[in-house]
Amino acid sequence: MPLKKGDYVILFHDGKRYLVNLKEDIFHTHKGTLDLSQIEGKEYGEVVFSSKGEKFYLLKPTLFDFLMKLRRETQIIYPKDIGYIIVKLGIREGMKIIECGCGSGALTTALAFFVGDSGKVISYEKEERFIEIARENLKRLNLEKRVIFKHKEVFSVFDEEEVCALFLDVKEPWNLIPAAHKALKGGHPLGILVPTTNQVSLVLKALSEYPFVEIEVLEILLRPYKTNPERLRPEDQMVAHTGYLIFAKKVFEK
Amino acid sequence: MPLKKGDYVILFHDGKRYLVNLKEDIFHTHKGTLDLSQIEGKEYGEVVFSSKGEKFYLLKPTLFDFLMKLRRETQIIYPKDIGYIIVKLGIREGMKIIECGCGSGALTTALAFFVGDSGKVISYEKEERFIEIARENLKRLNLEKRVIFKHKEVFSVFDEEEVCALFLDVKEPWNLIPAAHKALKGGHPLGILVPTTNQVSLVLKALSEYPFVEIEVLEILLRPYKTNPERLRPEDQMVAHTGYLIFAKKVFEK
Amino acid sequence: MPLKKGDYVILFHDGKRYLVNLKEDIFHTHKGTLDLSQIEGKEYGEVVFSSKGEKFYLLKPTLFDFLMKLRRETQIIYPKDIGYIIVKLGIREGMKIIECGCGSGALTTALAFFVGDSGKVISYEKEERFIEIARENLKRLNLEKRVIFKHKEVFSVFDEEEVCALFLDVKEPWNLIPAAHKALKGGHPLGILVPTTNQVSLVLKALSEYPFVEIEVLEILLRPYKTNPERLRPEDQMVAHTGYLIFAKKVFEK
Amino acid sequence: MPLKKGDYVILFHDGKRYLVNLKEDIFHTHKGTLDLSQIEGKEYGEVVFSSKGEKFYLLKPTLFDFLMKLRRETQIIYPKDIGYIIVKLGIREGMKIIECGCGSGALTTALAFFVGDSGKVISYEKEERFIEIARENLKRLNLEKRVIFKHKEVFSVFDEEEVCALFLDVKEPWNLIPAAHKALKGGHPLGILVPTTNQVSLVLKALSEYPFVEIEVLEILLRPYKTNPERLRPEDQMVAHTGYLIFAKKVFEK
Repeated sequence: MPLKKGDYVILFHDGKRYLVNLKEDIFHTHKGTLDLSQIEGKEYGEVVFSSKGEKFYLLKPTLFDFLMKLRRETQIIYPKDIGYIIVKLGIREGMKIIECGCGSGALTTALAFFVGDSGKVISYEKEERFIEIARENLKRLNLEKRVIFKHKEVFSVFDEEEVCALFLDVKEPWNLIPAAHKALKGGHPLGILVPTTNQVSLVLKALSEYPFVEIEVLEILLRPYKTNPERLRPEDQMVAHTGYLIFAKKVFEK
Repeated sequence: MPLKKGDYVILFHDGKRYLVNLKEDIFHTHKGTLDLSQIEGKEYGEVVFSSKGEKFYLLKPTLFDFLMKLRRETQIIYPKDIGYIIVKLGIREGMKIIECGCGSGALTTALAFFVGDSGKVISYEKEERFIEIARENLKRLNLEKRVIFKHKEVFSVFDEEEVCALFLDVKEPWNLIPAAHKALKGGHPLGILVPTTNQVSLVLKALSEYPFVEIEVLEILLRPYKTNPERLRPEDQMVAHTGYLIFAKKVFEK
Repeated sequence: MPLKKGDYVILFHDGKRYLVNLKEDIFHTHKGTLDLSQIEGKEYGEVVFSSKGEKFYLLKPTLFDFLMKLRRETQIIYPKDIGYIIVKLGIREGMKIIECGCGSGALTTALAFFVGDSGKVISYEKEERFIEIARENLKRLNLEKRVIFKHKEVFSVFDEEEVCALFLDVKEPWNLIPAAHKALKGGHPLGILVPTTNQVSLVLKALSEYPFVEIEVLEILLRPYKTNPERLRPEDQMVAHTGYLIFAKKVFEK
Repeated sequence: MPLKKGDYVILFHDGKRYLVNLKEDIFHTHKGTLDLSQIEGKEYGEVVFSSKGEKFYLLKPTLFDFLMKLRRETQIIYPKDIGYIIVKLGIREGMKIIECGCGSGALTTALAFFVGDSGKVISYEKEERFIEIARENLKRLNLEKRVIFKHKEVFSVFDEEEVCALFLDVKEPWNLIPAAHKALKGGHPLGILVPTTNQVSLVLKALSEYPFVEIEVLEILLRPYKTNPERLRPEDQMVAHTGYLIFAKKVFEK
């Protein structure tokens, strides 16, 4: 199917990825300028040349690419963590889910991506600016209708009940454990991300005082490799830490 | 919504998880017997007691639980890898995907879970026994209609073209690079899992000889923690290796 | 040089290592009995056969082997951590060092090994039983004369001053920061091992309130590989955690 | 003991370490100039001020500091790996050891440090330039007399026999397995460092064809933490790879 105005494309050149929308006219790189209108009518997988004669590949952006190319003003949740969260919480079409703390909307995007048109993500965020960024990021994937943003700081209770899953990405998630318990369906999962061990301890303490079971803490590390088949070895550097993931399921009594 | 015959439940007791189907009558554990008919009418989040008076929680199984409790005859792909694959390939409702090598059906289950009723997973597998196991595992999640199994060993070509993503989990994936290239849509992603570095080198060599770009190799490590808030620390042991993940996107020329 | 009564030998068979002293007569394994007197006169590198005809290699035990084969009643500090501690503290011949908490004597052994005959390790330990075990372990390497054990619990002060390095392996090392400061030479290093993140935080807090600089926290992970050259890959399981290492150097004012 | 001309000092300021020799007059940093002659007569642990009034601590350099501050023209072996090598090979006073490939002399320095005045390191290196750098690095610790450099490329045999340990840090160590076997005492250890998995496979293959047992492959990862006690967490980035370590012991027959 030929590419048309409004489509998103990854321009790939020499290990670098640029996510562009074909509604723009021109894209500038240090390897020359690309006339995006020349791309309309081409297909993913074809090549185009910059003003400097450099070859750029037209690649299909996947969810991964959209997440890594989010417009961001905060630390984002990374695909390695998002993928695990999606599987662990079992996010699927039709689910109603609460997220508290949307940040730049990386997890919001993934949750909206997987709940389908019949599902709904309710996203609480106290910073209006973050909601705007997250909404803008959702629009690129046409996911904005699947998300209801609530611009408020939650203290003791969420507006919803009987949600299928709930994720907390706030500074003091231990304060929201009672609210999370109230909002969740019985037996259903809660997920939390925090960057520090001190926060993990406080969350675990709060969880131990509420009817939650199957409590787990873990971290996920991604180690990238160089791709020379004759000299296979990990890259020199890797991300050492993004955050600790905590999971639990709600029960009615302990 | 009260639980009824045929529903799946996680019975959780003292850190152990049992996945049961309420169509069974009785479930035996070393902590006593559970009469499953007594669970009908209860809700997720409630408790039941075994014949020995031990408390079991009724939890909602998520995709994670189904994957970890697959009936298996092979090494399975783990949730930490599956989550990343799903996000990296951007699996979503409506996609047509090829998987080659279903094993016990862990990735098959996840792919089918995320392509929705409008999508389709075509799974090639040369061992009939594995197809049976995978099919049985899919049935537990009512996903069997989303998968077409093809009982054959692929040598040079897949039956399909223009697929949105393709995943290889076979012993010698380097032999299938030309077939994968032919089957994929332009610009769309290929994923491969292999357990050894020798295989990674052979795959990278094959990929370098075909029009594929954005080639990546990585491994994902999951490090679990003990959950005592006063004595937070990783577990003593962890899984050191499941496999190396390789990704690339198809282009029409190199 | 031929082996003689009293020498230590690693008996190696099929991936298993046994550390034996040739003063014993007989060594029993599940692969048969070995008459140790037949080993006298042989050399390291030669083979002997058990009563079941199984081949055992005679290998030279290195410091690593003695550490891994310590008689132990406590968790020991592992070679991966010990090696780093030795280099980080710069342990060498002639040094006077304090260790607090000898446990089964793994680190004590390594410290004594590297301070030489002209150096001295002063080891404080409140459990007499541990001192006995540590002393016994030191004797195997003829290192007992390099260590002075002090059977006491330290609260506020060590007996020594002007020590070249000091290592704390106790439950509440934060209480000993003032004592450690007093005992160390100016500008010289302190090392601490603790298993939990809560302890790390308490140590860091104590260090921040005393004249210590160049404060570092780290952990060391060792990932073992299978040794089939055609199928190179990490082992399935690895040790996920031994402890967190903390280092700092004493200054006279902050 | 007061510091004097010729002594080495770590100047520590705001997380940065500078290794200086007091025989120099002046040391320039971006935080001002330090008159090193003013340091003579002071003690480790005291402070001095730069021309800009910034406080610098005088710290005792340990082996770690000398290794990290080597003058280098090659990739060096890091302390995390060196510490393990020392313990694994059981390097101690009086040993005669062969090293092949001195690079900038990091491991050479550590080996010389631990063999004492009665030991000897024989270091083979085909690049004269590297020998000069390594020798210069050794001089800072007064270790140059413990090392004999041999400027030659080894093909089939080392000049020495009956060495206590042997370490290979060359591009194609598999070619030196026969030479290493010949040079080692029976039952004694061989160590090898290589950066790529392809090299590990070739070494393992060569080792399997020679009388070596107790073959091990491993890698060591060091994960640093931020040191805020209220927000304990790993650093954002870490070194993902230095090299794979391979160990084996020589036997006379397989």
